Amino acid sequence: MKGKNKLDTESYKGVRDFYPENMFVQNYIFGVWREVVESFGYLEYGASVLEPAELYVAKSGEEIVNEQTYTFKDRGDRDVTLRPEMTPTVARMVAGKSNELSFPLRWYSIPNLFRYEKPQRGRLREHWQLNVDIFGVENGEADAEIISIAYQIMNKFGAKDEDFVIKINNRKLLEELFTHLKLDPEQTKKVSKIIDKKDKISPAIFEASLFELIGDKKTELIDLLSSNEKLLDTLNKNAGENGSQNAKETVELIEKLSSIGVTNTVLSPTLMRGFDYYNGIVFEVFDTHSDNNRSLFGGGRYNNLTELFSDKDIPAFGFGMGDVTAKDFLEVRNLLPRYRPQTQLYICNLGPEFLNHVRSMADSLRKAGLNVAIDLSNKKLGDQIKTADRQYIPYVICVGENEVKSNTYSVKDMQSGEEKRVKLEEIAGVIKR
Amino acid sequence: MKGKNKLDTESYKGVRDFYPENMFVQNYIFGVWREVVESFGYLEYGASVLEPAELYVAKSGEEIVNEQTYTFKDRGDRDVTLRPEMTPTVARMVAGKSNELSFPLRWYSIPNLFRYEKPQRGRLREHWQLNVDIFGVENGEADAEIISIAYQIMNKFGAKDEDFVIKINNRKLLEELFTHLKLDPEQTKKVSKIIDKKDKISPAIFEASLFELIGDKKTELIDLLSSNEKLLDTLNKNAGENGSQNAKETVELIEKLSSIGVTNTVLSPTLMRGFDYYNGIVFEVFDTHSDNNRSLFGGGRYNNLTELFSDKDIPAFGFGMGDVTAKDFLEVRNLLPRYRPQTQLYICNLGPEFLNHVRSMADSLRKAGLNVAIDLSNKKLGDQIKTADRQYIPYVICVGENEVKSNTYSVKDMQSGEEKRVKLEEIAGVIKR
Repeated sequence: MKGKNKLDTESYKGVRDFYPENMFVQNYIFGVWREVVESFGYLEYGASVLEPAELYVAKSGEEIVNEQTYTFKDRGDRDVTLRPEMTPTVARMVAGKSNELSFPLRWYSIPNLFRYEKPQRGRLREHWQLNVDIFGVENGEADAEIISIAYQIMNKFGAKDEDFVIKINNRKLLEELFTHLKLDPEQTKKVSKIIDKKDKISPAIFEASLFELIGDKKTELIDLLSSNEKLLDTLNKNAGENGSQNAKETVELIEKLSSIGVTNTVLSPTLMRGFDYYNGIVFEVFDTHSDNNRSLFGGGRYNNLTELFSDKDIPAFGFGMGDVTAKDFLEVRNLLPRYRPQTQLYICNLGPEFLNHVRSMADSLRKAGLNVAIDLSNKKLGDQIKTADRQYIPYVICVGENEVKSNTYSVKDMQSGEEKRVKLEEIAGVIKR
Repeated sequence: MKGKNKLDTESYKGVRDFYPENMFVQNYIFGVWREVVESFGYLEYGASVLEPAELYVAKSGEEIVNEQTYTFKDRGDRDVTLRPEMTPTVARMVAGKSNELSFPLRWYSIPNLFRYEKPQRGRLREHWQLNVDIFGVENGEADAEIISIAYQIMNKFGAKDEDFVIKINNRKLLEELFTHLKLDPEQTKKVSKIIDKKDKISPAIFEASLFELIGDKKTELIDLLSSNEKLLDTLNKNAGENGSQNAKETVELIEKLSSIGVTNTVLSPTLMRGFDYYNGIVFEVFDTHSDNNRSLFGGGRYNNLTELFSDKDIPAFGFGMGDVTAKDFLEVRNLLPRYRPQTQLYICNLGPEFLNHVRSMADSLRKAGLNVAIDLSNKKLGDQIKTADRQYIPYVICVGENEVKSNTYSVKDMQSGEEKRVKLEEIAGVIKR
């Protein structure tokens, strides 16, 4: 809506304005995230949305750097990027203080991230993303902990086990498979990209693309990718007496998760996850709802990202979960809580002469821990109450001569319509109960 | 520190990395802000850091738009700005839904803001700023509420009344003064800019600059600006029988603040505040410390900013308080709390065979509300305990065969060195106490 010679009130394309009702949802999602990750001993860190552009050239997927970042020159001719993901930033920070920090590190952050793309459902130009990472643990215990955190978050949001499935893969299984098929490095890279896109293309195109690259080997590849049993058998046989160490670790991870109550998992050898830096276990939480059947979020092991900055190699495992997909998931399942403002009480007045009294009441109720707004509008009482109602404030008190004289107030519950007459010092108790 | 062929680990110039200890300080400051403003019934809103560039052309101070913003073209050839302040955004949002929103609105936000300038003490390229605004109240009650919130925040941070002074002015007093001196619009504008800079230039330069603009009138101007009594007398006389309404309102505001306990105020006719959009009461919280003698933050009344977007005129009063200046203030006075992580307990193990037990212990302690990290490093026990110590985690439990058999654990208080032997179900109680 734009009047003559007036500025537009729309936000920039593909980003969101958060009115208090939207902020409530955002804060609810962030609150669940914080509660779960902090219960596992993760500490919050943060950084600026501005990063040197070179940070993204080396290790992210190419598509992101070349086509999808917001990159510009600052007034000092530096190339700056609005971060499209947090992992390079956290690797930079960990590498920068690796001598002072005490490992293992458990860190989390809720950064906003930017990608220049066509806005669509679940994909905006700016979104917020919980990032959870553990640094300095090479063994599968870290993988199990991180994946169980992902599970606990879903659980805390009210999702049932049948609402989602956790797909698990190990990139090293694919490496073994490609070796088994004797693919060269170029073929390996291209075949990986095709497998990554498998769910987005038809089986016929999948097969044709593979044939074009590796000829008849595609038959065995597709066969092995379609049966976990055959795949693991083949890799175990190839590896000799003790079987494939990677196959063993992957199966053990799924068993360990099961032993701690995370049973909605499935080994998915075609799961790649976009970023190039993953080099071990990867996982993805997948929505099973028929209207929203898609990947919700995921992560994996990236053991050499800190090498970009120093010779020190720090093992890492982590994931990112976006607010937009989280909100879509919760909405589809009706799991979002109903809006209520932080404000608990609205005090109206029968005239400006009572404002001094109202102000001092509010002051003492705030000291008792209540969030109290007072009406300053000089409007009629009915209109004052309507303001409270339209802002969903749950309790209202009206103050006039009787109230001031008797120091007794009617606390009105706006939802039930019930009123309770109490003394000033009882108000906080009534409302908190 | 940068190795050969390695990327730099420094952040982009003039912005900050927040390691957990820094994030703790940031979260402390944000926490105080939220607590105070929510107790006054203010609701949180938010928006993207990206805004259409045109939003800043119309009403901000010119210096900001032309020299200090981060403005660039996106891939769709739109001019985009990283917001340098939040007020245009909130005006846009309020104007955009003015028919649906119920006034008065009490809103707050803690956005990050960007300015391209030379980084120096108290001035960085990115900072976070609490923004508190009330919309829809024209009378001085709103001004008093907002200024008392600023006071309560300082109070909550532990500042004493003598640590700061709240300077108050009314831009309309200056308008009356300029009319009294018969300055033309051009002179008015330029004289305002000089008065705004008064504290940053010497008295001699101040006087010379005024003389250049308005000749001998500068003598009366300086005389009236140096005595509140003379100034108010002159304006009251000029206004006729009832005196100056603006003078009256300004004095009443200071009296009202005093009546609600905010007494460290002073009428400061030379206080301008940078932005062009202020058009009534302005205020500034000023640090009285000899090492940090400067403006901390401020705000004022801006009654026609929504006119940029619609014909609807919505009165507004608000202020912004930055995290960098807040932190400097708290550091100088030693008011920052000591770092403690959110993690309360670290569980070590005497070998990986105890990890299953530790994991299930941690699980039940998390359900009891504790934040628990477990060691997954396979390091020696001494090194595990050292990790907890270096991360400032206050309690440690070590688990081996004895503990598993007896279900009894030694909870070690890392600060006092004291140990308490308790059953599993007593651990949460001991640590929370």
